[in-house]
Amino acid sequence: MQKALKYADQKRTHFLDELQHILRIPSISTLPEHKPDIERMAEWLRVHLLEIGMEKAEVMPTQGHPVVYAEWLKAKNKPTLLIYGHYDVQPTDPIDEWKTKPFEPEIKDQYIYARGVADDKAQFFTHLKAIQAYLRTSGSLPLNIKVLLEGEEEVGSANLEMFIKQNRKDLKSDAVVVVDTLMTAINQPRLEIGLRGALFFDLTLQTGKIDLHSGSFGGGVSNAAFELMKILVQLTDKQNKVTIPGFYDDVVNPGKKELKVLYSDKKTFYKSAQSYLYKQENEFPSHLMPGIRPSLDINGLWSGFTNTGIKGVIPAKAHAKVNIRIVKNQNPEKISQAFTRYLKHLTPQKLKLSITEVNKCSPVLVSYKSPAVKAAVNALEQTFGAKPHFAREGGSIPAVEIMQRILKNDPVLMGYSLPDDNLHAPNERFYLLNFHKGIENNIRFYHLVSKSG
Amino acid sequence: MQKALKYADQKRTHFLDELQHILRIPSISTLPEHKPDIERMAEWLRVHLLEIGMEKAEVMPTQGHPVVYAEWLKAKNKPTLLIYGHYDVQPTDPIDEWKTKPFEPEIKDQYIYARGVADDKAQFFTHLKAIQAYLRTSGSLPLNIKVLLEGEEEVGSANLEMFIKQNRKDLKSDAVVVVDTLMTAINQPRLEIGLRGALFFDLTLQTGKIDLHSGSFGGGVSNAAFELMKILVQLTDKQNKVTIPGFYDDVVNPGKKELKVLYSDKKTFYKSAQSYLYKQENEFPSHLMPGIRPSLDINGLWSGFTNTGIKGVIPAKAHAKVNIRIVKNQNPEKISQAFTRYLKHLTPQKLKLSITEVNKCSPVLVSYKSPAVKAAVNALEQTFGAKPHFAREGGSIPAVEIMQRILKNDPVLMGYSLPDDNLHAPNERFYLLNFHKGIENNIRFYHLVSKSG
Repeated sequence: MQKALKYADQKRTHFLDELQHILRIPSISTLPEHKPDIERMAEWLRVHLLEIGMEKAEVMPTQGHPVVYAEWLKAKNKPTLLIYGHYDVQPTDPIDEWKTKPFEPEIKDQYIYARGVADDKAQFFTHLKAIQAYLRTSGSLPLNIKVLLEGEEEVGSANLEMFIKQNRKDLKSDAVVVVDTLMTAINQPRLEIGLRGALFFDLTLQTGKIDLHSGSFGGGVSNAAFELMKILVQLTDKQNKVTIPGFYDDVVNPGKKELKVLYSDKKTFYKSAQSYLYKQENEFPSHLMPGIRPSLDINGLWSGFTNTGIKGVIPAKAHAKVNIRIVKNQNPEKISQAFTRYLKHLTPQKLKLSITEVNKCSPVLVSYKSPAVKAAVNALEQTFGAKPHFAREGGSIPAVEIMQRILKNDPVLMGYSLPDDNLHAPNERFYLLNFHKGIENNIRFYHLVSKSG
Repeated sequence: MQKALKYADQKRTHFLDELQHILRIPSISTLPEHKPDIERMAEWLRVHLLEIGMEKAEVMPTQGHPVVYAEWLKAKNKPTLLIYGHYDVQPTDPIDEWKTKPFEPEIKDQYIYARGVADDKAQFFTHLKAIQAYLRTSGSLPLNIKVLLEGEEEVGSANLEMFIKQNRKDLKSDAVVVVDTLMTAINQPRLEIGLRGALFFDLTLQTGKIDLHSGSFGGGVSNAAFELMKILVQLTDKQNKVTIPGFYDDVVNPGKKELKVLYSDKKTFYKSAQSYLYKQENEFPSHLMPGIRPSLDINGLWSGFTNTGIKGVIPAKAHAKVNIRIVKNQNPEKISQAFTRYLKHLTPQKLKLSITEVNKCSPVLVSYKSPAVKAAVNALEQTFGAKPHFAREGGSIPAVEIMQRILKNDPVLMGYSLPDDNLHAPNERFYLLNFHKGIENNIRFYHLVSKSG
């Protein structure tokens, strides 16, 4: 392990150069025009995984973007660790709010700026570099490692469940480390013990056959933008509660025991959010809401003329993208049905509302007592000099619930990005030191997991 | 006059070819990238006006797009008629709903399809061809004619008032014929005796400094799309009345006498609108609303991620374009202030709402008894075989109020497009026979006005 740590320290500049290379590939999974970049990214990773010494590496097709899979299984009688990360990234809009070019990484004040650097390229790369450090120095790893890099995390991992089911045997593992989460702060590591589930819907309301002149018809006909707004505003009440009937029925709030170990940093939350108006429910302050309570947000909204200038039009169609986040024990299927039913109830009979469920995934709670989590706690304390927080994250990583359910391995949600890294937003960044410390920590983590087996 | 009528009849094919030429120029005034097309259009018209025999023709600059002006003033002791039309057109979106290419005119089933054909290119072109018919056959016109073709009608004629004030003397005229309105139906001509005024606003609501991840923050922070919707839905009530305090204070509904001559075609309204849900106020049915009552519509609405796919984002900004239409005696300035005040009242204190008034114009009522209107009634009856309807139109032509106020001439609002010509919408079209009959009618109209002077 010491040799590996030393190697990683000596190779800092080189590793950073390699990271910048993958940040230049605009592997945006949601935009069809970037499909070639997705494929280029996957192929680069396959080659790189072989270069760093993995026994086997493949680009494996799915119905959507491919999975990159690699393995090194020569550690007899040692535990097997699955590493999960994703090589796809979010789109870049609003592009004019970026201070640098999203796919031309720039280093400034100890941070590296680029789309996808925190979510999730620098993060999964810390594992590739930790593996490399072991294999280049001692020719072996202290445990068996399987690497699964997904290309559809940012579009809801729609094809991952099928992939994992089909490759259940190959993916068999004692623990899975998911490297797609945050630290609480610089030098304050953190392990997630809960994730929300998510549902995504595309809605289109049609109020007439054609767009009309807002002079010649204004006042006599309904307006799609107006009518859609009237429906959507009814989805939450003045207390910010979701009004879908039965929505909260199955919600399990954290128990006293969990609340005791559960960390929540008020200060960081407000500093990162920079919102002008916070939301809460009576018993839950804003900073606790995303971790433990379900929510409903509009991700996108559009209708009519959205260019510069004037167009006197009454739009016949209006569109919205709705995102519901759910917690344990809400069932995505049940919530999807309740939402659809309620929307139909809210829509005036004569209007046409189309509802498309684009994606859904279940919420997750993970044990904070598994051997792998204990190994992570020790590694993090050695690397960062502080015991990690246990936290619940409001985001969703469908992969975690899928792997937990199908592979029945112990999840470890251990990531190195920071709360103000602007994930999914302009000026995404990653703290440089965490890139190097992440590699260091992974080296320690592999060592400690190998002892725990 | 007979020679002119005969000439126009013989030149039908040739006139139609010329019309198709101007329809190919995408003179969209609201999109800066089409500025060269606007300029090309104006220059073509200037040259053409000289070609058809006008004494003088100029492209006259304004702060925005230029005005094309031409005159023929050799009819001593005869009245002077000003002809008003506009050479700019609406944008083409939603482009995928067009069955033909907007700027490649196609003739199908007696109609010619192209953006701007009804609004207003085929319409003003009927006057140019009527003038040509007189000048080519008898070398003179029966009255003095001034032509004013505007390039900013579709963006609210913001610079026309200044232009008309500066050129008040040159534009002096006894009557003005505005060729930018509808007929009731094929063979049922119509003269507008009222137009609504209009106000256009761009709104931007900001709920925070940055877009946020709807997983990590959803439930704890406000959402710009949601907050803007909550504000906008309060602008009308369940009875479809505008809720801006004082909004209806100055509204003058038509008197009994006017209601007696006022035509309103229920059937055509519903057939053209093709709406799934009509709006009315208690005492006013839907088809009367646009003509005589004020209204408030959303022309455009957008926030967050509007592309295909998923982006889990809480938008920090949301935008809307609002169009208010007003009737006599509502004052645009007063309504603008009341609207702005009310929006500020509706906006939660911590949020930032920016309100930009993009344009406004006053409503108009015109006499249906002036000599020029009487000449129009007679011409229309001869050409189409039916007495014209007197109607009030919900649209706005800022030029009319401006000319009425500054030039103090008698307006005649006489147009040849049909209610289902898809103005401001995909598949805009114009009835071919009305192009030829329009020319014929203008020839008669000039003759009758010259007798009335």
